[in-house]
Amino acid sequence: MSPGLPFPQAAAALVEIGRDAYGRGWLPATSGNLSCRIDADSLAITVSGRHKGQLSVADIMRVDLEGRALDPQRPSAETLLHTQLYRHFPELGAVLHTHSVNATVLSRMVGEALPLNDLELLKAFQGIDTHETRVSLPVFGNDQDMVRLAGRVEAYLASTPALPGYLIAGHGLYSWGGSVEDAARHLEAFEFLFECELAMKRVSAP
Amino acid sequence: MSPGLPFPQAAAALVEIGRDAYGRGWLPATSGNLSCRIDADSLAITVSGRHKGQLSVADIMRVDLEGRALDPQRPSAETLLHTQLYRHFPELGAVLHTHSVNATVLSRMVGEALPLNDLELLKAFQGIDTHETRVSLPVFGNDQDMVRLAGRVEAYLASTPALPGYLIAGHGLYSWGGSVEDAARHLEAFEFLFECELAMKRVSAP
Amino acid sequence: MSPGLPFPQAAAALVEIGRDAYGRGWLPATSGNLSCRIDADSLAITVSGRHKGQLSVADIMRVDLEGRALDPQRPSAETLLHTQLYRHFPELGAVLHTHSVNATVLSRMVGEALPLNDLELLKAFQGIDTHETRVSLPVFGNDQDMVRLAGRVEAYLASTPALPGYLIAGHGLYSWGGSVEDAARHLEAFEFLFECELAMKRVSAP
Amino acid sequence: MSPGLPFPQAAAALVEIGRDAYGRGWLPATSGNLSCRIDADSLAITVSGRHKGQLSVADIMRVDLEGRALDPQRPSAETLLHTQLYRHFPELGAVLHTHSVNATVLSRMVGEALPLNDLELLKAFQGIDTHETRVSLPVFGNDQDMVRLAGRVEAYLASTPALPGYLIAGHGLYSWGGSVEDAARHLEAFEFLFECELAMKRVSAP
Repeated sequence: MSPGLPFPQAAAALVEIGRDAYGRGWLPATSGNLSCRIDADSLAITVSGRHKGQLSVADIMRVDLEGRALDPQRPSAETLLHTQLYRHFPELGAVLHTHSVNATVLSRMVGEALPLNDLELLKAFQGIDTHETRVSLPVFGNDQDMVRLAGRVEAYLASTPALPGYLIAGHGLYSWGGSVEDAARHLEAFEFLFECELAMKRVSAP
Repeated sequence: MSPGLPFPQAAAALVEIGRDAYGRGWLPATSGNLSCRIDADSLAITVSGRHKGQLSVADIMRVDLEGRALDPQRPSAETLLHTQLYRHFPELGAVLHTHSVNATVLSRMVGEALPLNDLELLKAFQGIDTHETRVSLPVFGNDQDMVRLAGRVEAYLASTPALPGYLIAGHGLYSWGGSVEDAARHLEAFEFLFECELAMKRVSAP
Repeated sequence: MSPGLPFPQAAAALVEIGRDAYGRGWLPATSGNLSCRIDADSLAITVSGRHKGQLSVADIMRVDLEGRALDPQRPSAETLLHTQLYRHFPELGAVLHTHSVNATVLSRMVGEALPLNDLELLKAFQGIDTHETRVSLPVFGNDQDMVRLAGRVEAYLASTPALPGYLIAGHGLYSWGGSVEDAARHLEAFEFLFECELAMKRVSAP
Repeated sequence: MSPGLPFPQAAAALVEIGRDAYGRGWLPATSGNLSCRIDADSLAITVSGRHKGQLSVADIMRVDLEGRALDPQRPSAETLLHTQLYRHFPELGAVLHTHSVNATVLSRMVGEALPLNDLELLKAFQGIDTHETRVSLPVFGNDQDMVRLAGRVEAYLASTPALPGYLIAGHGLYSWGGSVEDAARHLEAFEFLFECELAMKRVSAP
């Protein structure tokens, strides 16, 4: 059985996570998009170009798992990167695409992947139960061609990622989880780790 | 037809944007000023020297497009830099002049312009639809002589700027848009980009 | 006579300190745990894995001073590091284990101890009445084996520590005090000092 | 005629500035103290050791201009540094002594004075009407002997300071103004300038 929430609850959850993440500076200037599974065939996602700190239910629409609108509004061009994740992971409940300063900056600095290790907070991710873990978060080059970008992400997903997320260079983070709460915890953990990594780079800057 | 809001709505919009931007640290110590078009011939602007986080309608006054007071209060000396923009762009709805730490610091570091490229958030500006954009934000030397400073800005405006803003060195940012909401989004995007640029400079500092 | 609070007040105090410390970013992604003495034989502690910014009384449980659950929920694996402190210091009222970015980062940078001196805020700690103090906060290597980690902490406690706290590398801070208020003041002072130390390292990097 | 507020209004003003400045991290862990003139002979000041974010009228007491308690509570040892300012400047209305990270850190880095110039925000201080100003904020060595420290400050006051403030190394800032509002604006301006100076040092670090 797939996870999922009826549309009204899904929309309410996205409104709330939008307000919280905007307040932290992770969704500036109408950027980013947020989604939540409704059922095996559809999801709720933010309408393109809305203020993420001031979402209402009218700013959330339904799309199917191919990204086709089930409501009259226009979904974001990046909807494809959301639906790809729901198709790949039947147990997936929510996807949060955010644009923090730290994600933007780190993704331009670290090359093809951000290595993460020896940090207790890695245990916030399901399946990781010790800080003695060496994982890495991939960084894809930014691309306005969503089909091409999704193709690169597809290869990553096929490799069974250790972390529920990826970065796009100079652009932001995709993170996900089995529910909106899990995805929010993952997002919070990623942003914590990004801030740690940047803080360490600042002090050790040549 | 020019954009514009009746005075009571214009004043209410400035009170709100003042509270928000002050809360983010962009209008410290009574600095900055905010304006909104009323009609083709007049605008609402903050009275000189008021606390921007605690504005009320009594702190907003009307001036004409030459900067002459239409109400008994004294407009800021920088009103001229606002009216210049409304005269130049008939479609302009709002101008926000802010003094963030990042704008102040970056404007002293980058010489005559801040180059911006390869950042997804550039798409927050109207007319930019890809991160593969090379634009730059001009930095004018600070000057207490508003007529002389406006003269330098005039030449920039005549060059059809790619970005709705400019910096004054050691002083702050002017940003604008077709409405208060658009100007607020532009301001938020500029501040995000400033923070990214500074974060990158910190790590790569020689 | 031991300090201590009846369970309802103890739980309420932990809910409040959780909300405050989460809001400052010191308890991200369900990390950390908080405890408060009830009496000579038991304490109240957060249940494992809960959102520290949204605690309710149902997220607080009782354990004895050996860390055995006195309520049906599962205590955190780190409960042992809390009970060790209550056993060692009969006058101890509260223990706060937090995971800030600064604690995480500094604890990976400074080797076996963080030296602190010439800072007025050291006077926030009981028994320190001048900035002309040279103290140091120990940093223990991170370990998923709590018995082994507690053994190392035991040796430190036996040495009569000058500061009410210790760091675990890449993990976080343990701080304590005679009451929740004292522990909260110590936590706030430690975090202030961490931010100062990091700020000084940033400027003097190489 | 001296400025001043009846005790109830003076206390209310200090409660409010305490909450605001604590919220910004400028009064951590019960540090700092705040005062406001009542009349030519007395002032209201925070009682020693109170939580500055949770002040109530019971945490404010009256002292005379020699620092002698006019109420039963114990004034802070640093009261002497407040009364010195009220004696020296008959027009002084309020003194705010704060402990921000930036004040602490900068005061340890800059030697005997912090030079400030070419920053528009300098105009927030009375008597400065252009960024083309070269002023400096003195830094006194920290001292637990208040009489000795006050002696050094006295010499500075006698030199007619250009700025309403001074730093104590590794300790914090004293700032003042003709009213609580003026002192609060000066404090906000100083903290803005400190953040600018530190941000510039971070990027240009060796």
